[in-house]
Amino acid sequence: MIKIGIIGVGRMGKIHLENLSRKIQGVQLVAAFNPGKEGQKFALDHGVKNVSDDIDIIIDNPEIEAVLISSPSDTHSKFAVMAAKAGKAIFCEKPIDKSLKNASETIKTISNLNVPLMIGFNQRFDSNFSKVRTEISEGKIGSLRSLHIISRDPQPPPISYIKKSGGLFKDMTIHDFDMARFIMGCEAVEVFAYGNCLVDPAIGEAGDIDSATVLLKFENGAVATIENSRESKYGYDQRLEVFGSKGAIKVDNPLKSNVQIATEGGTQLDHHLNFFMDRYKSSYLEEINAFVEALKNNTPMPVSGEDGLKAMVLAEAANISLKENRPVKTDSIQIA
Amino acid sequence: MIKIGIIGVGRMGKIHLENLSRKIQGVQLVAAFNPGKEGQKFALDHGVKNVSDDIDIIIDNPEIEAVLISSPSDTHSKFAVMAAKAGKAIFCEKPIDKSLKNASETIKTISNLNVPLMIGFNQRFDSNFSKVRTEISEGKIGSLRSLHIISRDPQPPPISYIKKSGGLFKDMTIHDFDMARFIMGCEAVEVFAYGNCLVDPAIGEAGDIDSATVLLKFENGAVATIENSRESKYGYDQRLEVFGSKGAIKVDNPLKSNVQIATEGGTQLDHHLNFFMDRYKSSYLEEINAFVEALKNNTPMPVSGEDGLKAMVLAEAANISLKENRPVKTDSIQIA
Amino acid sequence: MIKIGIIGVGRMGKIHLENLSRKIQGVQLVAAFNPGKEGQKFALDHGVKNVSDDIDIIIDNPEIEAVLISSPSDTHSKFAVMAAKAGKAIFCEKPIDKSLKNASETIKTISNLNVPLMIGFNQRFDSNFSKVRTEISEGKIGSLRSLHIISRDPQPPPISYIKKSGGLFKDMTIHDFDMARFIMGCEAVEVFAYGNCLVDPAIGEAGDIDSATVLLKFENGAVATIENSRESKYGYDQRLEVFGSKGAIKVDNPLKSNVQIATEGGTQLDHHLNFFMDRYKSSYLEEINAFVEALKNNTPMPVSGEDGLKAMVLAEAANISLKENRPVKTDSIQIA
Amino acid sequence: MIKIGIIGVGRMGKIHLENLSRKIQGVQLVAAFNPGKEGQKFALDHGVKNVSDDIDIIIDNPEIEAVLISSPSDTHSKFAVMAAKAGKAIFCEKPIDKSLKNASETIKTISNLNVPLMIGFNQRFDSNFSKVRTEISEGKIGSLRSLHIISRDPQPPPISYIKKSGGLFKDMTIHDFDMARFIMGCEAVEVFAYGNCLVDPAIGEAGDIDSATVLLKFENGAVATIENSRESKYGYDQRLEVFGSKGAIKVDNPLKSNVQIATEGGTQLDHHLNFFMDRYKSSYLEEINAFVEALKNNTPMPVSGEDGLKAMVLAEAANISLKENRPVKTDSIQIA
Repeated sequence: MIKIGIIGVGRMGKIHLENLSRKIQGVQLVAAFNPGKEGQKFALDHGVKNVSDDIDIIIDNPEIEAVLISSPSDTHSKFAVMAAKAGKAIFCEKPIDKSLKNASETIKTISNLNVPLMIGFNQRFDSNFSKVRTEISEGKIGSLRSLHIISRDPQPPPISYIKKSGGLFKDMTIHDFDMARFIMGCEAVEVFAYGNCLVDPAIGEAGDIDSATVLLKFENGAVATIENSRESKYGYDQRLEVFGSKGAIKVDNPLKSNVQIATEGGTQLDHHLNFFMDRYKSSYLEEINAFVEALKNNTPMPVSGEDGLKAMVLAEAANISLKENRPVKTDSIQIA
Repeated sequence: MIKIGIIGVGRMGKIHLENLSRKIQGVQLVAAFNPGKEGQKFALDHGVKNVSDDIDIIIDNPEIEAVLISSPSDTHSKFAVMAAKAGKAIFCEKPIDKSLKNASETIKTISNLNVPLMIGFNQRFDSNFSKVRTEISEGKIGSLRSLHIISRDPQPPPISYIKKSGGLFKDMTIHDFDMARFIMGCEAVEVFAYGNCLVDPAIGEAGDIDSATVLLKFENGAVATIENSRESKYGYDQRLEVFGSKGAIKVDNPLKSNVQIATEGGTQLDHHLNFFMDRYKSSYLEEINAFVEALKNNTPMPVSGEDGLKAMVLAEAANISLKENRPVKTDSIQIA
Repeated sequence: MIKIGIIGVGRMGKIHLENLSRKIQGVQLVAAFNPGKEGQKFALDHGVKNVSDDIDIIIDNPEIEAVLISSPSDTHSKFAVMAAKAGKAIFCEKPIDKSLKNASETIKTISNLNVPLMIGFNQRFDSNFSKVRTEISEGKIGSLRSLHIISRDPQPPPISYIKKSGGLFKDMTIHDFDMARFIMGCEAVEVFAYGNCLVDPAIGEAGDIDSATVLLKFENGAVATIENSRESKYGYDQRLEVFGSKGAIKVDNPLKSNVQIATEGGTQLDHHLNFFMDRYKSSYLEEINAFVEALKNNTPMPVSGEDGLKAMVLAEAANISLKENRPVKTDSIQIA
Repeated sequence: MIKIGIIGVGRMGKIHLENLSRKIQGVQLVAAFNPGKEGQKFALDHGVKNVSDDIDIIIDNPEIEAVLISSPSDTHSKFAVMAAKAGKAIFCEKPIDKSLKNASETIKTISNLNVPLMIGFNQRFDSNFSKVRTEISEGKIGSLRSLHIISRDPQPPPISYIKKSGGLFKDMTIHDFDMARFIMGCEAVEVFAYGNCLVDPAIGEAGDIDSATVLLKFENGAVATIENSRESKYGYDQRLEVFGSKGAIKVDNPLKSNVQIATEGGTQLDHHLNFFMDRYKSSYLEEINAFVEALKNNTPMPVSGEDGLKAMVLAEAANISLKENRPVKTDSIQIA
């Protein structure tokens, strides 16, 4: 039984806490850290014994083998290094740090301290996307030639969030950068990005974009295109299709039901999913399962700190590309 | 080049004439018989040289090797026997005769005269349904266990037509009886039918039904269910699914286009086909191609007079079953 | 907080226990009865405080407001009446009794004792099927004309189970009889059933059938056909389609994933679900949620003892129909 | 009855000739020009009266109102200008000239001579793509944000063809450049293209690419991505999906049939189309219908010389972008 402490019981923290407290085998959630009362109450209600606004109940507890960090992004580095120094394995929500330089240092520190680190790129664990990777690995479509990823959210986050998000590429496209590396199985060498403000002028006034298309050239010669929109009137649209020398694989969106109604107007299928948890629920469960499995079996973490850094490098390159309207080589991105 | 004469240029006749005049290889439509001027003009406009209201231009022309009979149902037997006596191969629209007894005699006569006879059960030639038969023959789903056929028309024919049609089972379900035998590859031994009037009371007043479900037990132990409706507000619904020891095959309806539109209301697919010719066009072409191929290669007709009779026996059994509310054995149906 | 006791921790019991212990809001599972140690351990492991092989820990506990009966079928009546006499609401797995007569008496007794009773016809709570019912109620497809239900299991249960099951109609088709009533919204008046042994001769030797087609005539003039098979090599196939005066609704099977792979051989979709729990998991959760909701709000149970009886009457009629090869009117089935 | 002459009876010419000779209403194909005997025989066999290797039988025939040019690309300009000088309307296969400069001059000349000119971008007339345009025009998905076009051919053309084709962007992507303008309804302002050789090294040795991804920025702020491959092992893949402020529209590929087979291995759909004519047949018919309609009604041609030029400008920009690895503004492309 692996004893875990959770750091941060905000929106993402609640999702992880609920999974850890009931649905993950072989793990016991023994402590929760949260500054505010509301998150503390949530933890207590879910049967967590030790709940506090003092981080030491986790860091100083030798029984706790691993921590799950889901606190505000600007605290990730701090808590991760604390936990690493205390010899605890770390699952950290993305991003480990908004600054590429700081993220790199944090990951180096943790690596030197020799504790496992996993970054929360949950979409890899969506059963559809993980199946795509498996089929590719089994040679089903041969050598890869192209990949197209679509990510559209039902509506944008509040402007207050947008202003602190670091921009679309770091906040939203970052998942697709990781997915592109995951599917391609190799590194992107060049990035060309375009983005603008088509959904809400206020987003542009806040200095961000709400629509983007990014082209990534990979070292295997294949090309990925990523298309993002902060607004999709028909619900979550999270898809990809990959093409290779022997065929193509595509993933459709899940709908609310499999019911089809045929009338004079044509045939109607059900709606796309509109609630965040409906769309991503199982992937959050699966990523924690994967973290726990890797800990138990002492195997490498499926999503490493390096993976987190590489996605951030792509976001950085995309930002420069957008600003300067030119393709940007990934090896030109200075991390230090 | 096989020279053909067409007998009857009404609704079905025009479809066949158009195919024969332009789209069928190796055949030359040299004469057309039709009592009325409108059909005659149609034939002339399509390049047919000899057009007349005298049947002899076909029967007495030794160059004509085959006839296509698409005249009113009550003239089929007469013209078929004439053609057979003149040594001409026959393609005859269904039914060869509305009376089972007369149909049987006509087919016997034609058989004794040793001319090829094909009945116009065109649905066997729809590319989807013929593919299903091929896959079954190749053992794809093992031994058959069940079959479900749905046939629904956009709207009923006029009451005047209903009154002379012979009833739903003989007029509409007859195609599905043939399809069931075609897919199963063996004979039905018992029929249980239910039907009533759910669409239009006038149909009931005319002594017919507009909705029916028929259960057929086959000699291989498998069961087929056929569901018909004279009215489908969403368009033609012509489908089947067959289940066997190794799997199942199903056929969906073609839609007007492959366009899908996702909006706040859900995802909309296009309409089902609503025009007779859109739905069945290619099957009429393919059945004539099959007729011509069999003539050229001197191979058995894919849909024989016997096939026509057997479908009629099932219709007869269904009528008795409906009337007496009991299952009816097919071998209890007296033909003579 | 409604306190519940569970009677019977066998296969179905474990499913219900797991849901009650973690996933249902507003309910507290305080006691579990099971004769055997293995089920008792399961209950203890899931945090149930009072676990015993003595039924009194539930019956005699005044705090327990409701019981969930998932013991062997031949004990349902006994435990249900005990619970009713103790004033406890009852959720009872189907069937409440294998004998129609005993079931009727049990339900009458419970009704006189004025306690709520819900029967475990879980498929009504599958999100797809409940959505179909909702759309019909909202008039989406007008007045109903036909319904086709397909239920095929991946493989048959053991012969030992078959021998005690009461036969296919009582054991498997019973769910579809309930679904047909649920969808149609009215009563079946006549049943014509056919069944045979196409999957495994041992099933026939055990006196049962493994394949069946049942035709039900409903009081609204509509007809339902139900097709069952104890074996489907491609996985669970649980579907229905319903046709009405304004359109048609159909439900497809869920597949393991939404991944499609196109290669030289065509396009491959994923497998159907093969594990019982994958296919039905959410419906078991939803039916208990519905039970608890009805208790809290003091509203009628969504699936009553009467519903249970009526499905059994249809199974009885189907058995007679199969044996005597004739349609059987439901009002000819004597319950007492 | 519009009298037409066809110039060039090669591969494309045969397709057009067959349509003109039988399937287009209100048009009479009275003459065919072809240097070689095989094309001449084809024309004669299809009932064309005047067949010659002398272009004058068309140019000097005052009865001929319109010409269809489907001769080798390097003769298009010459014949088009001849026809224009003779006052004949022109349907010309793409490209009107491989050189942007010559194409521009030819179009200017024809425009000054005031004869209608239509370019053969047939895909606009595929029923699915034209329906997409209609739905957009009707506001179904609001203002456009993104468009993704996929065009993959089953296999590359021979290297001898590749060498004279002008390169992938001018030969293959040109259709997608036209489709992008057609769907977006406005002009592209910038092009970023990437391409390489992933299918066959011989194509690279011939100085061409076989795989490409092109990003187009449009004046309305929307972005189109086009992905091409000269090889698709699963057949023709010709699709698009467009996203807007109110929803999204996508088009799937037609398959050989609607048959689905479910077995232990999963569910198999039929193959994509593999033969050129299967995939594009109806669009060739529809574009000629549109040409004839415009002539009869004296309305503007649906695909003008200007449309042809604009697609060529995008191909030119793509070539520069690929060579110099930078985005290229369309207004920087010098035509003269």
